[in-house]
Amino acid sequence: MRNIKLTIEYDGARYLGWQRLGDSEKTIQGKIENVLKQLTGTEIEIIGSGRTDAGTHARGQVANFKTDKTIPVAEMLEFLNRYLPRDIVVKKVEEVPERFHARYNAVGKKYSYFVWNDAIPTAFERHHSFQVSQKLDMELMNEACQKLIGKHDFIGFSALKKTKKSTVRTIEELSIQREGHMLHFTFVGDGFLYKMVRIIMGTLLEIGSGSRSVETIDEIFAQKVRSEAGETVPAQGLFLDEVYY
Amino acid sequence: MRNIKLTIEYDGARYLGWQRLGDSEKTIQGKIENVLKQLTGTEIEIIGSGRTDAGTHARGQVANFKTDKTIPVAEMLEFLNRYLPRDIVVKKVEEVPERFHARYNAVGKKYSYFVWNDAIPTAFERHHSFQVSQKLDMELMNEACQKLIGKHDFIGFSALKKTKKSTVRTIEELSIQREGHMLHFTFVGDGFLYKMVRIIMGTLLEIGSGSRSVETIDEIFAQKVRSEAGETVPAQGLFLDEVYY
Repeated sequence: MRNIKLTIEYDGARYLGWQRLGDSEKTIQGKIENVLKQLTGTEIEIIGSGRTDAGTHARGQVANFKTDKTIPVAEMLEFLNRYLPRDIVVKKVEEVPERFHARYNAVGKKYSYFVWNDAIPTAFERHHSFQVSQKLDMELMNEACQKLIGKHDFIGFSALKKTKKSTVRTIEELSIQREGHMLHFTFVGDGFLYKMVRIIMGTLLEIGSGSRSVETIDEIFAQKVRSEAGETVPAQGLFLDEVYY
Repeated sequence: MRNIKLTIEYDGARYLGWQRLGDSEKTIQGKIENVLKQLTGTEIEIIGSGRTDAGTHARGQVANFKTDKTIPVAEMLEFLNRYLPRDIVVKKVEEVPERFHARYNAVGKKYSYFVWNDAIPTAFERHHSFQVSQKLDMELMNEACQKLIGKHDFIGFSALKKTKKSTVRTIEELSIQREGHMLHFTFVGDGFLYKMVRIIMGTLLEIGSGSRSVETIDEIFAQKVRSEAGETVPAQGLFLDEVYY
């Protein structure tokens, strides 16, 4: 069997998220599988690097699937982009070794979160950022980022129920760039727990707006309880940029 | 009477353009006038700096209107952005001298046009750029820009019917920046004829892809006939960035 790797960009605004839900037409996985079925004449199940929530976007989601059809990859790419809705674009189609698994082999991920930091909204980035009207203290948020970088048990920053699996993760990069009114938060790490990026973001924004102190980061690591951390920010500001293998 | 100046940003994707068309709900002018009627309790007619076509966007459209209501400008701003659809944002509301006229007093405009120059489309900028798959020769396009800059009769680059008004305009800046696959064309001038930016763009792209020579610019200036120039590119890549007074 051939093993095919897809690199996918999508604007998640209209979708219920990555994961196929029954027959729903409203998921990214479902849309892609439908077009692959047209292409190959068989049911195809694609394996994503991980789920993305409703409204979350991707610039570099990765998925793979198996097929015994001999269709060249260039033809697959062309067919997919011709029949997929225009807010889902397959950027690359590659043939990879049969043991490649988009989820199990992922060794890291890069996410972006965009905050529109102004009292006046943005007409263009409304589906791709979260508006925060209050002034945000960059220095305090940067201090908090420094505390989050490194290897920690991030259970307090996740929406996971109790789990037997390890909730220790390493954040390698967590940085903030400002361009005009837009703040761009970059997260690079070996893995992220369920809703971890959005809960860290909520915590950082509460620190930036002065409603909690930088030291609460240490408390959340010590207490290991979700309720200590900040609000979960909306999915619309979140982008899965890259999956590392 | 007070004279109020509005600076407006809009994503034109869902609209039939700036200009109100009867009772249509589908124009920017119509949307804003409806909210101003709610606010003031009277019919308000706003004067735009100029029309924008269906699908064209703005980062800095300017309009003005007269009112005898004493509502403070900060309150107007807040009310407008609360009740306008989210793809129309009023950035600024200012009280200006009674003689200010958004159209007659405009002394120049700045436009941007975005070209996505890759065979693979973009999921995010699909409503805000025009995709060109062929390789484009930057050097040839830059040469053509140099020929277009300055004071010329641009009638051959417009969709105007015969007119008695002057069709001489001055382009002060016409430049191209590349960021990744996105080409950003900037136009600054004292005024632009009907569809002039989109026809110049079509001509530049035909020069860049090799289907016409740089010298055809001189011929269009000499012949003064629309049919000599390139195709009109789609409105979706066009942004009115700023109006100068």
